[in-house]
Amino acid sequence: MIEHPAFPVDQWCLRELELHDDLLAQTESLFALSNGHIGWRANLDEGEPHALPGSYLNGVHEIRPLPYAEAGYGYPESGETVINVTNGKVIRLLVDDEPLDLRYGTTVSHERVLDFRAGVLRRALHWVSPAGQAVKVTSTRMVSFTQRSIAAVCYEVEAMGGPTRIVVQSELIANEELPRQNSDPRSAAVMKHPLNAMTHSHQGTRVNMVHRVAHSGLGVAAAMEHMVVSPEGITPVAESSPHLGRVTLATVLRPGQRLRLIKFVAYGWSSRRSVPALRDQVDAALTAAALTGWEGLLDEQRAFLDNFWRDADVEFDGDAEVQQAVRFGLFHVLQAGARGERRAIPAKGLTGPGYDGHAFWDSEMYVLPVLTYTLPDAVAHALCWRHDTLPLALERAEQLGLRGAAFPWRTITGAECSGYWPAGTAAFHLNAAIAAAVTRYVSATGDEDFAEKAGIDLLVQTARLWRSLGHHDNEGAFRIDGVTGPDEYSALADNNVYTNLMAKRNLLAAYEYVHRFPRRAQELAVGDEEAASWRDAALAVVVPYDDKLGVHSQAEGFTNHQEWNFSATPRENYPLMLHYPYFDIYRKQVVKQADLVMAIMQCAEEFTDEQKARDFVYYERITVRDSSLSSCVQAVVAADVGQLDLANDYLAEAALMDLADLEHNTADGMHIASLAGGWIALVAGFGGMRHNGDTVSFAPRLPPGSSRLTFSVRLASGRLRVIVHPGKARYQFQGSDHIRFLHYGQPVTVNSGQDVEMSTPALPARARATQPPGRDPRSRRGDAWKD
Amino acid sequence: MIEHPAFPVDQWCLRELELHDDLLAQTESLFALSNGHIGWRANLDEGEPHALPGSYLNGVHEIRPLPYAEAGYGYPESGETVINVTNGKVIRLLVDDEPLDLRYGTTVSHERVLDFRAGVLRRALHWVSPAGQAVKVTSTRMVSFTQRSIAAVCYEVEAMGGPTRIVVQSELIANEELPRQNSDPRSAAVMKHPLNAMTHSHQGTRVNMVHRVAHSGLGVAAAMEHMVVSPEGITPVAESSPHLGRVTLATVLRPGQRLRLIKFVAYGWSSRRSVPALRDQVDAALTAAALTGWEGLLDEQRAFLDNFWRDADVEFDGDAEVQQAVRFGLFHVLQAGARGERRAIPAKGLTGPGYDGHAFWDSEMYVLPVLTYTLPDAVAHALCWRHDTLPLALERAEQLGLRGAAFPWRTITGAECSGYWPAGTAAFHLNAAIAAAVTRYVSATGDEDFAEKAGIDLLVQTARLWRSLGHHDNEGAFRIDGVTGPDEYSALADNNVYTNLMAKRNLLAAYEYVHRFPRRAQELAVGDEEAASWRDAALAVVVPYDDKLGVHSQAEGFTNHQEWNFSATPRENYPLMLHYPYFDIYRKQVVKQADLVMAIMQCAEEFTDEQKARDFVYYERITVRDSSLSSCVQAVVAADVGQLDLANDYLAEAALMDLADLEHNTADGMHIASLAGGWIALVAGFGGMRHNGDTVSFAPRLPPGSSRLTFSVRLASGRLRVIVHPGKARYQFQGSDHIRFLHYGQPVTVNSGQDVEMSTPALPARARATQPPGRDPRSRRGDAWKD
Repeated sequence: MIEHPAFPVDQWCLRELELHDDLLAQTESLFALSNGHIGWRANLDEGEPHALPGSYLNGVHEIRPLPYAEAGYGYPESGETVINVTNGKVIRLLVDDEPLDLRYGTTVSHERVLDFRAGVLRRALHWVSPAGQAVKVTSTRMVSFTQRSIAAVCYEVEAMGGPTRIVVQSELIANEELPRQNSDPRSAAVMKHPLNAMTHSHQGTRVNMVHRVAHSGLGVAAAMEHMVVSPEGITPVAESSPHLGRVTLATVLRPGQRLRLIKFVAYGWSSRRSVPALRDQVDAALTAAALTGWEGLLDEQRAFLDNFWRDADVEFDGDAEVQQAVRFGLFHVLQAGARGERRAIPAKGLTGPGYDGHAFWDSEMYVLPVLTYTLPDAVAHALCWRHDTLPLALERAEQLGLRGAAFPWRTITGAECSGYWPAGTAAFHLNAAIAAAVTRYVSATGDEDFAEKAGIDLLVQTARLWRSLGHHDNEGAFRIDGVTGPDEYSALADNNVYTNLMAKRNLLAAYEYVHRFPRRAQELAVGDEEAASWRDAALAVVVPYDDKLGVHSQAEGFTNHQEWNFSATPRENYPLMLHYPYFDIYRKQVVKQADLVMAIMQCAEEFTDEQKARDFVYYERITVRDSSLSSCVQAVVAADVGQLDLANDYLAEAALMDLADLEHNTADGMHIASLAGGWIALVAGFGGMRHNGDTVSFAPRLPPGSSRLTFSVRLASGRLRVIVHPGKARYQFQGSDHIRFLHYGQPVTVNSGQDVEMSTPALPARARATQPPGRDPRSRRGDAWKD
Repeated sequence: MIEHPAFPVDQWCLRELELHDDLLAQTESLFALSNGHIGWRANLDEGEPHALPGSYLNGVHEIRPLPYAEAGYGYPESGETVINVTNGKVIRLLVDDEPLDLRYGTTVSHERVLDFRAGVLRRALHWVSPAGQAVKVTSTRMVSFTQRSIAAVCYEVEAMGGPTRIVVQSELIANEELPRQNSDPRSAAVMKHPLNAMTHSHQGTRVNMVHRVAHSGLGVAAAMEHMVVSPEGITPVAESSPHLGRVTLATVLRPGQRLRLIKFVAYGWSSRRSVPALRDQVDAALTAAALTGWEGLLDEQRAFLDNFWRDADVEFDGDAEVQQAVRFGLFHVLQAGARGERRAIPAKGLTGPGYDGHAFWDSEMYVLPVLTYTLPDAVAHALCWRHDTLPLALERAEQLGLRGAAFPWRTITGAECSGYWPAGTAAFHLNAAIAAAVTRYVSATGDEDFAEKAGIDLLVQTARLWRSLGHHDNEGAFRIDGVTGPDEYSALADNNVYTNLMAKRNLLAAYEYVHRFPRRAQELAVGDEEAASWRDAALAVVVPYDDKLGVHSQAEGFTNHQEWNFSATPRENYPLMLHYPYFDIYRKQVVKQADLVMAIMQCAEEFTDEQKARDFVYYERITVRDSSLSSCVQAVVAADVGQLDLANDYLAEAALMDLADLEHNTADGMHIASLAGGWIALVAGFGGMRHNGDTVSFAPRLPPGSSRLTFSVRLASGRLRVIVHPGKARYQFQGSDHIRFLHYGQPVTVNSGQDVEMSTPALPARARATQPPGRDPRSRRGDAWKD
């Protein structure tokens, strides 16, 4: 889609020059605004035409029963689904006798711009009504990063032809009608009329509405306030009813005259606070926003983003489209995680109802790594959310007959919502992902307070889980049987390499933390015997290796399985899970997403260079990338084994996942993890960055065609800037003291303010790995290098 | 329950001396009557009290949607459920002002007798109404083996005290209200009001009703006719309405006078025939039954059973309770299979709604083996039913990406109804069970016509399935990965020994048949290459063996798994599947039901004696018998390895499964396979009978305490009678010529009319195998030997 002529490449914006009906659903996701608390899809101001109206509040969900054809012990009985809350985006416009509706009349021009530095969505529209009356409408929409409960719109109408009778209706709409979603099992269930009206009121240009979600019981408040600038005196009329709030302005504009409406919308929700308390909370937030004013909000937004880009920006010379896509991705990662504040970061952020609004392991393994080095406070919040859900995870582990904590595969509140356990509950590696996120964050930031108060709890309880999940066999090896690794095209396997190595890290990290915080260890009743048993299990963990083939076996027996018949698989049969039964997929050598290759990336120290190279080639041949989580990992390992051209192709795939709608479901929301993957592919791939324990290392290498890569990472109470050129890399550090790291295995120390240049070695030439027929990534070589 | 004093042991009857409310549900199953076409639970004549009213017609089902929390490709979208059809059992009685209802008044005596030789259920009741009026009621109920559509009741009332005003209402009731079933996932879903009225009529003492099942569209007709013998002239009144047919008699009986009502009930159903055709069909059946008359039906029934018992009876001296239980079991096996006639034999027969009325692999592996040697025509019918469903199985295989036929794990019509594929679709061994049933039947009967017309189709299409399901690895071994064997506490394992060995037999049998019937092979497009590829795959099949432990591994990797913590498992937590998640059960060494041990029984030639003994001990230690299909197999292999005492305990468990309600769900219907298992435990266990290809062998051995076992098997166009005494066995053959078999490996030929005595060797003494704590079978030694 990005190749559509309506989307010219722009370094700091996503720009759309015309509106296309068939792209409406995707652009509603791409141009969505969010601060991690509020999410507004980019539905048009006037409400229609729309593909999927969407206004979300992080954590606001409905509960629905999970049905089973055959029940089983421990299956979750109910699931959580994100709901479309009160829509505060709508500003309808009547031009003389006709509503502004782009399906009628003539659209002379229509442009939308998502500005990554200003943090706003701008729209400019020139429309001629069926009766021939021309108007220009501009709107600027924001969801504030600095005032968490606030979204705002600045809406302007200008008459172009003769005097024009204008009526503007600014609305709050609850229980909007939603279109039926498609039947892809990965798409979200649709909930109808989830909001029960509790109270509503209006005064002046302010309207306030409070609802309660029918089954989850959550209270949701929304309110709006308006400021009007009009050439003539104007008397707005406000009204409210259970599911509609409306403020109406009417005037006559002469040619060139403009009506300007600034709309502030405030949202609040709670599972505990009363209806009056919620009502007052959003009114208060409105008052604060009005005090700041529209320009003030814009200024705050830009300042917030300036700060972010200073730490987070990545420059990648040689591919302007990827450069744009990576910034776009970072902007969406920021929007998903910035102000979640002790709530989950859903797989789709707050950009659509895909995956029911659930958070998965990709939060900890894809999104948090980016935020750890760019906006670490957001990571603390996300991990505190996991910590808040510990009681549920302890309970779930007990239900499963395990010790410690079993975190849910998919959830909004922390309760397990997976209705298919072989690819849910059995994917225990999620728990190691949480542990890895803890140690990564603490090592990067030195946040000992978090480590002691929350981090150790997460490490200890996940270590306990692993210790009880695994067992020693009669040769003393520690086995973890019957679990599902990242590759969802295998399930219930014994000794999945990725799972076992991540469990090993988890166990060793817990061992380290209980010795670092002995008082907390005592509180958690961790004795010396228990801690030692974690360490010993970790060091004895089984890592299957196929001696005959000379490669690691993703799990025991995997390399003995029949290879998927790729040549008999037509292209339209991907993703395989929608065209073949699980039973057949599970029993054959076919990999949905990086699994053993993910192990190579995450646990690089466990593999020799020769093993990495052989393993990568073996698994490339059978990996179909039916998951958006795969390409960035393949990019990183491709770079690691010196296949820089291939790495570059995977980088582009990860970064363009949504802009090019590669999985054909961007309509349901953005693939936040894959977008994070663009940054990861650059920093861990071409930057070669690894962070294991307290050791940070780099191995910079540029793909052919690129002359420069720069990125920054927040580390050691400072910011390390890495500038990669062909054959050399420069490291600049700004911080309190100095930073130590490895450059191609060689220790480097950079003092604050210092600039160190290192040469980079030439990499051995290797034949490009091959993928299943038709599943190779699109070559970036074929595209023009647009810089 | 059989130990309840109300159930005295009787060799040819099941007798109940008093009615116990708390046993009502179980006795409705135990005393149920069926001919394999019609099934009537033993609800009381007067309808109430009841636990679960049940009238079934083999094949009559409703369709219901199968829901999934997360959908998947190839999941069945709808399931089939047996329904309660029009109830023709009900005969209500008003005694003066009060209905006969055992919850009121005084029950002086109440006796029920299920007579295995007469094939009837008799009831004798002496009741005093709350007002003090005493009556005696006797009823005799039958479901005719000789007139397939007919059930009948002879009902008599005798006044005991003063003159008594008697009203008798004989009814047909459609859409009876059913109680809610419990939530055990193995229990049936309840369908409400499945019958839509199409037509109803009455004339004289005849009533006719036709319904259509709401979603499946099946037409169901029921009609009743009556004959009345009364001391006074009496004018019955008939009436009919959409869901009720009723014939009412009223009279006054003086003390000692009797009213006798004979009720004939006819059933018919069809998916194709019109309503008028169905109406006429049941009226015609009624006319035929009335022509035969009550006494005639009784005579036919007894003659049919005399014939059956001559071929099928087993005498086992030394344990009267087991003797009774085995005959009771044979009677129910006969009832389930006698007149199914190209319909499935459901797991519960037609005795209750358990398992939704579905047929499973136990039909071919447990029930048909008994019928093959006792009532072989029924086997031909059951296999012709499978043959009729071949088109659906071919379609299912194609959907699964396989060649040949994939028969359904559970079904009524032949469509897959399993809503949990890891223990459904993945249990491919069902297909080998069908193939085994074909070769067993053809070898036992010499029915070459069946072999050529239907048998070869089943063998070829299942062989194709196996060939496409398996693959050769890089050492040339033939692997079958990712399937579920009989043990449902393991799933999706590689190279399950039982599955692989049964697949081997299936492939070799198909190879043999295509050479025996080359013209049919050509029609089936089986070329020489294809047939050779079956043979070669069969001979290269993988059979996992753990060299270190010196035992077979049930499937690859199984013996490396952690052992279930039996000592931490309280007794009330069995069956484990209701108290632990599948994920945990699957990944540990715990066996629900004989799996490797089933392989030893079915494919004895693949194991050395030493392997059998070691394997048996190993698997006994971890087998919990949470399935009723296990104990008879364990009995057979225990006998094989010389553990005769243990074999005896398992025999008793299999035979008493329902009489003692060992699985606590006899209320839902009988465990027909386990009841067949009583016969199997005696014949294959203590008789040591095996039948592999065309080789029949015996290895008779009696358990301590038993002085004699006799059984007959129909083989070689005749009947071989085997009489086992301690230390010797006698073989008597009645047939056209002679029979050849092996006695302890030694070839024996017995001519028709001849009687050959052979000595039996002493068996080596072995320590009794142990079971998980609390899961050992009840010892028969503790019980009195009641003979």
